[in-house]
Amino acid sequence: MHQTAVARCVDEADLKAFIRRALVAAKIPEEDAAIVAGLMAEADAFGADGHGVIRLPHYVRRIRAGGINTRPNIRVVRERSGQALLDGDNGLGHLVMRRAAELAMEKAAEAGVGWVGARGSNHAGPAALYARMALARDMIGLYIAVGNANHLPPWGGTEMLLSTNPIAIAVPSASRPPIVLDMATTVAAYGKVKTLLQRGEDMPVGWMIDREGEPITDPRRANDGFLLPIGGPKGYGLALIFGLLAGTLNGARFGRDVIDFNADQVTPTNTGQLIVAIDIAAFIDVATFKAKVDEVWETMKSSPLLPGFDEIRLPGERAARTVAERKAKGIPLHPELDRQLRTLADELGVAPL
Amino acid sequence: MHQTAVARCVDEADLKAFIRRALVAAKIPEEDAAIVAGLMAEADAFGADGHGVIRLPHYVRRIRAGGINTRPNIRVVRERSGQALLDGDNGLGHLVMRRAAELAMEKAAEAGVGWVGARGSNHAGPAALYARMALARDMIGLYIAVGNANHLPPWGGTEMLLSTNPIAIAVPSASRPPIVLDMATTVAAYGKVKTLLQRGEDMPVGWMIDREGEPITDPRRANDGFLLPIGGPKGYGLALIFGLLAGTLNGARFGRDVIDFNADQVTPTNTGQLIVAIDIAAFIDVATFKAKVDEVWETMKSSPLLPGFDEIRLPGERAARTVAERKAKGIPLHPELDRQLRTLADELGVAPL
Repeated sequence: MHQTAVARCVDEADLKAFIRRALVAAKIPEEDAAIVAGLMAEADAFGADGHGVIRLPHYVRRIRAGGINTRPNIRVVRERSGQALLDGDNGLGHLVMRRAAELAMEKAAEAGVGWVGARGSNHAGPAALYARMALARDMIGLYIAVGNANHLPPWGGTEMLLSTNPIAIAVPSASRPPIVLDMATTVAAYGKVKTLLQRGEDMPVGWMIDREGEPITDPRRANDGFLLPIGGPKGYGLALIFGLLAGTLNGARFGRDVIDFNADQVTPTNTGQLIVAIDIAAFIDVATFKAKVDEVWETMKSSPLLPGFDEIRLPGERAARTVAERKAKGIPLHPELDRQLRTLADELGVAPL
Repeated sequence: MHQTAVARCVDEADLKAFIRRALVAAKIPEEDAAIVAGLMAEADAFGADGHGVIRLPHYVRRIRAGGINTRPNIRVVRERSGQALLDGDNGLGHLVMRRAAELAMEKAAEAGVGWVGARGSNHAGPAALYARMALARDMIGLYIAVGNANHLPPWGGTEMLLSTNPIAIAVPSASRPPIVLDMATTVAAYGKVKTLLQRGEDMPVGWMIDREGEPITDPRRANDGFLLPIGGPKGYGLALIFGLLAGTLNGARFGRDVIDFNADQVTPTNTGQLIVAIDIAAFIDVATFKAKVDEVWETMKSSPLLPGFDEIRLPGERAARTVAERKAKGIPLHPELDRQLRTLADELGVAPL
């Protein structure tokens, strides 16, 4: 393991402005660039380091290679009172899923639940970004995506036919931070492997194995093996079902058809994602519900600890701390990422961050 | 580990008839007894050995203690086009969730998606029983429940504040068996621990730990520790979120409030469950979808194998094999269960199985 170099900190607003000018230089329209930049900077602000600005060089490379439609006609293809299917027209995933989340919430306000699937989308950042959108409207948000590269074999196999297909669920509370679960169906998300690779750090045993079943800890050897699912066959089952729901049901790619967006910058990925909004008021008084969520929070915190632990954490608690810290002190940029972003600014002819 | 004794096999129809007469003798109305008996025998037929007839002595004990309402008024409390909340009026869980599944499918046929939550319910058997109901209508079914006893601490804690809160998702296919995932958020469901206890067999390492973090393998020592969640904090996060969705959102018990139905036969459990039906036709042509699911099945099967494995299995594949086998040869009854059911028949004054 290498020592982590000291990172400089940047304001979320400055980060957003930089991403925006980079995207505009790559020919994304002003308004769309502002939306995507806001969401990407927000991802970094809440600590999704593997899914925020770290992806910008990749997005720009893909846009410039013609692999992203810079003027997408994102439209509703099918629709009923509680459900819709969007076609993202190969636009940036953030644009597609923001629209999907808004539509899901509109539907939930009427039907109680809104389930919106998308095809023709692209990588959209961390799953929690969209699940969280429901919180401000006193709704519960649920997001599932087909990942953009297969890193997981079916349980007992060696061919990588599945992605880490993540799920995020966000539940509002009263005075505590919202409870937000954001997890890959693998022990580690591939974004975390990429982050360690960029930082020159090792992975813990249990993240990946090679084709003989032996552990891999050097992220540079990631291509020699694959990620491990949580709970063995259970995590495989979840990745498979999430792929069917977010991919196959929406007419998006899944399984062997998935386009590896690292290897291929041109073919439309036809990424599938889904978001569900649940209107709490359809089930229960909202204030009562939120007070109960606070109570659940305090109950979990009150448990005595196992040897070796110093606190019980709730899902979303660390993200809430990170947001508060990064709003105050800025977002730390790892020197290697900082260097990559300066190179990108040079290439695009825009002011660096 | 003890040697497993030879089990005799009984027909599903005979098993259903026995459960029915036992429930009727326990003062469940004829029609309701037939419904519950059919669902319980079906659970055994597809291999949910921890959640079928093995639970009958417990149900009868609870009914006779006054802990179950034998004449429940199961009713819709709140409702919108894509959603409803049922009050089960402390009836048998099978009656409540069958009604919930039917309502969810009715709603999905109109709104595209139907999300029905229940409070005032009780243990309803295996999660897959209700998710599977959607298959015949070319829908996807999803079921989540709050378990009826807490066996899981929050991650890093030692107080059992969470249940194994299972999820089941059923997806129809064309010529292959449906893909049906039915999993606890723990490495093993508590029902499996009970089954091994009854059979006098040991648990594998990794199912449970004691309060010092040491493995427990003797199911008779189950009370000295707790189940382990899948993927550590991830499984804990899923159990927590599933509890909020199936319990708190429905006004049902969750967390420290859960009534341990093993220790207390009288207090209404106020069990929370939810079922979601998704109408495939709202998203995509049904035949196209089912053909794609077959293709996904075949793709997964085609993967080369890791050392030590002899096949790739799809979720639901083993259940499909078990159903076929048990329809042909009958359902094996472990001698200890057989003995318990004979005792029950004596107590109730009904003909034994």
